[in-house]
Amino acid sequence: MGSKVYFATATAGIKPSGKKDLLVVYFDQPTLISAVYTKNHFKAAPVIYSQSLTEKYTHFRALVINSGNANCGTGEEGLIHAQQMAQRVAQNLNLKPQEVLVFSTGIIGVPLPIEKVLKGIDQACQNLHPLTCDDKGETCITALKEAAEAISTTDRFPKYAVEADSWGFGKGAGMIHPNMATMLAYVFTEAKLEFEDLRKIHQEINEKTFNSITVDGCTSTNDSFLLIALGNKEIPLREVKEKTFKVAQSIAKQIVADGEGATKVGIIEVVGAKTKEKARAVAEKIATSLLVKTALFGCDPNWGRIIAAAGSAFDYPIDPNRTEVYIGKYLLFKEGKPTNQNLQEVAEYMKQNKEILIKVNLNEGKESWRYLTSDLTYDYVKLNAEYTT
Amino acid sequence: MGSKVYFATATAGIKPSGKKDLLVVYFDQPTLISAVYTKNHFKAAPVIYSQSLTEKYTHFRALVINSGNANCGTGEEGLIHAQQMAQRVAQNLNLKPQEVLVFSTGIIGVPLPIEKVLKGIDQACQNLHPLTCDDKGETCITALKEAAEAISTTDRFPKYAVEADSWGFGKGAGMIHPNMATMLAYVFTEAKLEFEDLRKIHQEINEKTFNSITVDGCTSTNDSFLLIALGNKEIPLREVKEKTFKVAQSIAKQIVADGEGATKVGIIEVVGAKTKEKARAVAEKIATSLLVKTALFGCDPNWGRIIAAAGSAFDYPIDPNRTEVYIGKYLLFKEGKPTNQNLQEVAEYMKQNKEILIKVNLNEGKESWRYLTSDLTYDYVKLNAEYTT
Repeated sequence: MGSKVYFATATAGIKPSGKKDLLVVYFDQPTLISAVYTKNHFKAAPVIYSQSLTEKYTHFRALVINSGNANCGTGEEGLIHAQQMAQRVAQNLNLKPQEVLVFSTGIIGVPLPIEKVLKGIDQACQNLHPLTCDDKGETCITALKEAAEAISTTDRFPKYAVEADSWGFGKGAGMIHPNMATMLAYVFTEAKLEFEDLRKIHQEINEKTFNSITVDGCTSTNDSFLLIALGNKEIPLREVKEKTFKVAQSIAKQIVADGEGATKVGIIEVVGAKTKEKARAVAEKIATSLLVKTALFGCDPNWGRIIAAAGSAFDYPIDPNRTEVYIGKYLLFKEGKPTNQNLQEVAEYMKQNKEILIKVNLNEGKESWRYLTSDLTYDYVKLNAEYTT
Repeated sequence: MGSKVYFATATAGIKPSGKKDLLVVYFDQPTLISAVYTKNHFKAAPVIYSQSLTEKYTHFRALVINSGNANCGTGEEGLIHAQQMAQRVAQNLNLKPQEVLVFSTGIIGVPLPIEKVLKGIDQACQNLHPLTCDDKGETCITALKEAAEAISTTDRFPKYAVEADSWGFGKGAGMIHPNMATMLAYVFTEAKLEFEDLRKIHQEINEKTFNSITVDGCTSTNDSFLLIALGNKEIPLREVKEKTFKVAQSIAKQIVADGEGATKVGIIEVVGAKTKEKARAVAEKIATSLLVKTALFGCDPNWGRIIAAAGSAFDYPIDPNRTEVYIGKYLLFKEGKPTNQNLQEVAEYMKQNKEILIKVNLNEGKESWRYLTSDLTYDYVKLNAEYTT
């Protein structure tokens, strides 16, 4: 049989608020894990540490995650601290240190208060209880919420999702508090899988979910996303992919909805492209355009900003005369010029809805991509300009 | 001998404000011009029109520029309007239409009020007077100001600069009003040059000035930058390059300082890089980071955001342990961790100065790049969210 999952949270005292800031996840046997990390060249110590392990091994027995401090920009000492965290979990649970992965999120450039963290680990390891989502019921939801809260920083709400035989939790809202936060996500499937299959599913899901969202266009030093196969059931690959994708997509959308200062979620769909790469590049340009993001906030059906952003994916020529731009169901631009759509009606749609669809049809092929973005608001500026070190 | 320059402005009635909105520049003989345009795939009609001419010819006799309407997203009709503008100038001044270049800036997606524009052209062509900067004196400054004002949209001040035998004017503040504005710049040198030399200088200058500034990271549909060699003097190439560079750099900096809602100019210097491309890529990542731009506004000496941005130029690995980060003269980050710099002092430097230096030394080579950026403020959001169509 496969792995049973146990977890516990603790208040180590890293967060000045006194909220929970430590999570330990334990597997009763070696468990198959695929991990992807930030591509930032300034990686936090726990990312460097965990990545060195997931490059060598495929099975692990525990995760330890602290919030309130990212253990980033902390030099040689930071790496020692990450290692100490793993060792302490291993000691408590009778594991080898290389069977433990370490993650951190929170303020950067401040040494981790390692004594507090280690005591928190001792405490959590005494309190492990089952994390099971078999019934998708209250036990499961309560557990996922508790886990998500323990790894949160500036998040306004805990982020989790459940599908059949697949569930997960995550955190992320931008990069602040006051220096930066990060995106962490842990998705579990009950499926029994080969590593190669898990890896392939993981990368595909990752590109379409966490790699297709933007709040501020900034890539954190700590981003990590784990896909964990517990090995309890034989499930067809296609189904595993479908369910884990849904869980990851839900968590990703929750992160955008909780984006710093966000009031809207922009769903950017580029369709009718010759290649997926092109659809994605054009979608990303629209999703990251400050002018599009402020227009979302202002409920301004500003197709001019959308075409200008779409046209700035320089490597991918698009034909203005073929391109159609929709906001919601409203066609605003066609054959190189605006349609006669009543823009007041479109503005009303934008005001009435929290999720706003922006669709661009390139009319040249069959590929598409979907990107999620938050709006750019006064509160974004406030959050990021006024919290000073 | 070389070319004499004449110009006139007019109030064609395109701008609802009733301010000047048309400029004609006339050369008394064919004049060598190098042009670079936006790379956006949604190019405005005048850009498509002028580009087709500058790809074929090197000498021109006149420029016509209107503000208040970008003639972009206007379909087939827009191209006809651009052509009509050139033809009307040619008729008035007894030129061939292909000797006239056309530029527009202002609102997009609205048909150009072509009758008004044509009447404005007639009026301007009756009023041509010399534009000479020989003495760098009051006549020159008054003329450059008048020219800059006639092509302005949301600009808060006219943008121009004068050096020995080199002068120019431009406009730009972001992309608004309410849809978008643009960047236009015209730099003149008295030098007699071969086209190949002019072209080479032009491209080099362009990369270091107008292609190394950012307000909102958005590439306009109308951006154009002309370098015009009047052929009046023999001047060493190196000197031409130096002076025209200074003029272009000054206009570029004025555009950033006038960036929408901007209160600060961030001077991003990346030094000690192995290649110029790398220095530039890293500088661009820092300059376009929303977190860095909000930190500039908040006068927050947030080195964490700077290293996170620097590290996100994925194609260019950097060594965190070698990297040094300065704000002003203050060294904040070294050997993978923060220095013991008093951050209050750095915050004070940021509060006291309008131009703020952010310097990153990669300590791996001798190449460098400089990028200018504005801060991200409440007023940026206000300007771009509240002006609705």
